[in-house]
Amino acid sequence: MELRPPLAGLRVLEIGHFVAAPFCTRLLGDLGADVIKVEPPAGDPVRQWGEQIAGRSLWWSIHGRNKRSIALDLKTSEAKAIVLKIVAHCDVLVENFRPGKLDAMGLGPETLRSVRPDLVIAHISGYGQTGPYRDRAAFGAIGEAVGGLRYLTNHPPGATNLPPVRVGVSIGDSVAGLYAAFGLAAALWQRDRGQGDGRGRSVDVALTESIFSLMEGMLPEFGKLGKIRQPSGGGIVTAAPSNAYPTRDGNWLLIAANSEPLFARLARLMGRPHLASNPDYQGNVARVRNAATLDSMIGDWTGQLELTELQCQLNHADIPNAKVYTAEDCANDEQYRFRFMVREVEDPALGKVLHPGPVPHFLESPNAIRWSGPDIGQHSDEILRELADLDDEQISSLRCKGVVR
Amino acid sequence: MELRPPLAGLRVLEIGHFVAAPFCTRLLGDLGADVIKVEPPAGDPVRQWGEQIAGRSLWWSIHGRNKRSIALDLKTSEAKAIVLKIVAHCDVLVENFRPGKLDAMGLGPETLRSVRPDLVIAHISGYGQTGPYRDRAAFGAIGEAVGGLRYLTNHPPGATNLPPVRVGVSIGDSVAGLYAAFGLAAALWQRDRGQGDGRGRSVDVALTESIFSLMEGMLPEFGKLGKIRQPSGGGIVTAAPSNAYPTRDGNWLLIAANSEPLFARLARLMGRPHLASNPDYQGNVARVRNAATLDSMIGDWTGQLELTELQCQLNHADIPNAKVYTAEDCANDEQYRFRFMVREVEDPALGKVLHPGPVPHFLESPNAIRWSGPDIGQHSDEILRELADLDDEQISSLRCKGVVR
Repeated sequence: MELRPPLAGLRVLEIGHFVAAPFCTRLLGDLGADVIKVEPPAGDPVRQWGEQIAGRSLWWSIHGRNKRSIALDLKTSEAKAIVLKIVAHCDVLVENFRPGKLDAMGLGPETLRSVRPDLVIAHISGYGQTGPYRDRAAFGAIGEAVGGLRYLTNHPPGATNLPPVRVGVSIGDSVAGLYAAFGLAAALWQRDRGQGDGRGRSVDVALTESIFSLMEGMLPEFGKLGKIRQPSGGGIVTAAPSNAYPTRDGNWLLIAANSEPLFARLARLMGRPHLASNPDYQGNVARVRNAATLDSMIGDWTGQLELTELQCQLNHADIPNAKVYTAEDCANDEQYRFRFMVREVEDPALGKVLHPGPVPHFLESPNAIRWSGPDIGQHSDEILRELADLDDEQISSLRCKGVVR
Repeated sequence: MELRPPLAGLRVLEIGHFVAAPFCTRLLGDLGADVIKVEPPAGDPVRQWGEQIAGRSLWWSIHGRNKRSIALDLKTSEAKAIVLKIVAHCDVLVENFRPGKLDAMGLGPETLRSVRPDLVIAHISGYGQTGPYRDRAAFGAIGEAVGGLRYLTNHPPGATNLPPVRVGVSIGDSVAGLYAAFGLAAALWQRDRGQGDGRGRSVDVALTESIFSLMEGMLPEFGKLGKIRQPSGGGIVTAAPSNAYPTRDGNWLLIAANSEPLFARLARLMGRPHLASNPDYQGNVARVRNAATLDSMIGDWTGQLELTELQCQLNHADIPNAKVYTAEDCANDEQYRFRFMVREVEDPALGKVLHPGPVPHFLESPNAIRWSGPDIGQHSDEILRELADLDDEQISSLRCKGVVR
């Protein structure tokens, strides 16, 4: 039997911008929540980011999907009164202003909870809602740097003078958005379950801490042993060979052959079967010690062959491998297509647009993209009628005053 | 008033190993759930990963924290019967075997739900539970590669022959674990809320898809414009200057001065105020076009100064900047210490160990690490008595047969 989506029946208000808060609400909307995004009349600046077609951002078609947009000028008292009327009908509020800003705007937690006592609130910020750095500006890349991830996303010391690499996307924002979504769902469960407490909670998510929490053994290894974890380039410090290797036709191929049988099979494919019994490469510890030489031998071999030939040989020998996918590879991937992780979504202005499907899947309910990112204020009228008890005349008048777009 | 942790009252069974499933249950335990980890008598292999002290992994002290460990030989029918007795008392099961493996072991969803009809199950795997690639082996690095992230985590084409860099941690696993935790909490909310349906759901999380879902506008930009997004090294394709720059004392410093006033102030600090009015660097579009030259000029300047001097100047000019933190910087950071994101946890074997605090924070409840990663089977006896109705004699007998450790 088909079940409804897990967040059907949940109403969320987003007063956010840029990446982290809107990413959080995208996740909630993807799982079935009714997400209302409050935007300034000029719109969220992220609408201008990335490639545009006729003034519409392709990223926005994903970032804003499944959301309703109401455009309000929050500098006016009328707009604030409207927000409070809407909040009364919401379970959750998500915001990512600088700490204290919402309070200064007259929309602090106490005011919000005066109209909705059990409101669950997620505050997303660079460094968190408390502490000496709380007022500092931060964004995704700073989360990555202060979280300890940027230092490690680099070639080993001495390999190059180039700077450590930025993770290819704004990972500090998206991981913080994910943590916020998780924290909100957990708070809602405790609020609403049978033996729950009916209480609204405040979730405090910092970009820096979200990244820092992923750093495996880095912190205690420093604390106990004084060891400062170092970057390992394309490889992994604890296993060899495991790296990305170039192919003759200009691709990168990931190969992981870091066990005895895997390495023996790889050595045979390379036409150097004796490597597996050479003491320099026998056992993972020896291979890790000599990883640079080993990687260069493997790269010499892969560089002579085309990707398809290499993958055919490696698959036949049952050695884990994967092409380093480009956008094109992702778009054409059979598995993504099969699982509707690459799908066409109809956008009124853009036509058919490729979207990644919602994550995670739920085996008992369809995993739907209801609509593409809306225009600024596309749902202003319906929201004002439905949740703020305004009639068309009142809405027109507010629009003339510039309160609503 | 202090509230209880958001997942207090939730019981979770983990039959997982390595990174993704145990990371998911760490997140659940950090928020107050009772997590029971079923391990083989030899223990989870991750116990051997990373730096060890007297045979105990420092990473494990974090990865296993707040969990109870029961060690069972799941190849025996007695152990399977015990698992089913425990499942009857659980809300959630988290597993990350290859798809179908749990079924083959006689612990498939139908069997589990025969003893606990509303069990919520998270299946974490490389490529998902369905589709042509479902049986393929995968691990964090493959999730990164097939998700499209690895390709972008590199210097721009032509800058170096070195391979694309692995994100410094096993990001495919941790993001998948986070998505699983979010999906579980969402499913629990719909199951348990007043107007909920009381139904157990199955959450299907793929490492590849978890990464792919973070890729911003990459997919529609390819679909509509045929554009294959390219790596941008330490910088960001849409803004300049924004990069990591070397300091005289061998550190990396992130500087983001990609607006007109910020860039003008930076140019003054560099002693080259005319840069701000040079048409090559006026406006973000021009600066992005000439980012390589600009970055090299900035790097020449930063390379002559020490980190503290640079940060002092930049902070004084209110230009966003951050040191690229090492493990040591994280450990000593004032903000992390203030927010208990760096804290000492007592480990019976290791003594005091530094742990990162739970994420996210909840303003109304303390954010607790109750204990460090346990020994293999440390809680076997108490769990068997409490949840499987066995007495000491029965437990001894099972232990002699090798069913329990």
